[in-house]
Amino acid sequence: MARVELVEVAPRDGLQNEPVVLGTADKVELVRRCIDAGLRRIEAVSFVHPQRVPQMADAEAVMAALPRVAGVSYAGLVLNERGLDRALTAGVDEINVVVVATDEFSRRNQGHTTMEGVALWSKIAARARAAGLRRTVTIAAAFGCPFEGEVASDRVLDLVRRVAEAEPDEVALADTIGVGTPDQVRGLLTGAAAILPAGTPLRCHFHNTRNTGYANAVAALDSGVAALDASVGGFGGCPFAPAATGNIATEDLLYALDRMRVTTGVRIDPLIGTADWLGERLDRPVPALLGRAGVFPSAR
Amino acid sequence: MARVELVEVAPRDGLQNEPVVLGTADKVELVRRCIDAGLRRIEAVSFVHPQRVPQMADAEAVMAALPRVAGVSYAGLVLNERGLDRALTAGVDEINVVVVATDEFSRRNQGHTTMEGVALWSKIAARARAAGLRRTVTIAAAFGCPFEGEVASDRVLDLVRRVAEAEPDEVALADTIGVGTPDQVRGLLTGAAAILPAGTPLRCHFHNTRNTGYANAVAALDSGVAALDASVGGFGGCPFAPAATGNIATEDLLYALDRMRVTTGVRIDPLIGTADWLGERLDRPVPALLGRAGVFPSAR
Repeated sequence: MARVELVEVAPRDGLQNEPVVLGTADKVELVRRCIDAGLRRIEAVSFVHPQRVPQMADAEAVMAALPRVAGVSYAGLVLNERGLDRALTAGVDEINVVVVATDEFSRRNQGHTTMEGVALWSKIAARARAAGLRRTVTIAAAFGCPFEGEVASDRVLDLVRRVAEAEPDEVALADTIGVGTPDQVRGLLTGAAAILPAGTPLRCHFHNTRNTGYANAVAALDSGVAALDASVGGFGGCPFAPAATGNIATEDLLYALDRMRVTTGVRIDPLIGTADWLGERLDRPVPALLGRAGVFPSAR
Repeated sequence: MARVELVEVAPRDGLQNEPVVLGTADKVELVRRCIDAGLRRIEAVSFVHPQRVPQMADAEAVMAALPRVAGVSYAGLVLNERGLDRALTAGVDEINVVVVATDEFSRRNQGHTTMEGVALWSKIAARARAAGLRRTVTIAAAFGCPFEGEVASDRVLDLVRRVAEAEPDEVALADTIGVGTPDQVRGLLTGAAAILPAGTPLRCHFHNTRNTGYANAVAALDSGVAALDASVGGFGGCPFAPAATGNIATEDLLYALDRMRVTTGVRIDPLIGTADWLGERLDRPVPALLGRAGVFPSAR
């Protein structure tokens, strides 16, 4: 039976672009609700400079307050060695390091070129490995760049080859600005699978900025993706990518997966309630559609 | 090279559920703009009782005022013989007859059972054929019913077999309430293609009510669909189906098709302008995302 792992990114990508900064207690409540819905892998925090992303300034406090539940893994986004130090101290279960596929976006987002990013990832990966920490690497802007435009698939696959040298536990391809289409997804995933050592799981991260996010998720599933990022309520974006609004929503993705009998272990009803709750906390309408349209068939 | 025909349904499905009733001149302007963007097949009117759908009461006036452009085909929705009489008098290029897959929805929408609907379609098809009119039949609620819930694919395919006896020029499968998923699309299209005489084109009609509409369109494309309905701006719905909001938007669908190098002959920029214009006329925000996010790459 088909199966995919859902990685809940609302606490990080979902919140980092919102004008309303959620308090620590609310972040913990958000994670608690996600766990109650069956989510087992949660990008809970990012260890970036608090002046760059004030929404994430309380990462240590969030980690200290999160419930420790068997089988639940908390990831922290890490962009440099200082971030790794903080992640190690805060006690995350895994780190997620981002390498941006284009130099201009990489410079604006992280202050260095793509190749410098690859070198940094290798350094961080080696240290994380020595510390026994699970580590994943995300290739951002893999489907297009807001500054450089088209990103050739050869360039992305070359990056996959390079980041693989540091032996990641997982490689993710991110459509950071929501421009990708299903044929790109199929091409990149097939190419990446051919490059990576057998058994290396692939994850995808989609935004629905141009209404291609869910089609991309289905294409990823068809191409054997192991995990999909999603954000409850469909909140989220990237503060440094213009108009990169809206992660795909966990409940909307789950609706399609449930109907297609793809196993996730996640329940949709509590997610809809969580999206409503989060919309109230963030003081804006829920972008996801399931809460408005309702689950089908309605009797279940 | 891959190719698909886009059928613009904003003048009919896009408008029939809107609280603001567009005037005849605005409807004609909408069609004119669609033609300017390259659309060549337009569901322009429906010949239903004006008390049931007041938004469509001026069908004859619209047809009389539409520009006649070589290669452009205007379709009219027809639900009964009175509707066919009106369509013949008004001079549409094709009629689209709807058979609803479930009895309860069929009764509420059209006042008869599904099988009575099939019989009526056969009668209308024979008369239209005698009059030299192109005729297509749409199986509504083919992916789920708001009243009866699940619709078995066997039931839909049995209907495909029955409606095919009247020799339609095209058979369409409609996800009237936006509950379908890509696996259903693939299953139904593959099944229908196996039943229909070779060469009978298949069309699909999707709503994005639960964020599966674009994924379904991509799945339909993969399964050899010849035509896809879409509504500029993503307006639309069905007044008799609860929460059946939002046809897939022509410009958002076209974004994905353009990026996947699927030929349509339609240009995206004038569509975005038309959606903005239509949103102003209807006094509500454009549901489509392209106008907000912008085309990628932006330089083109």
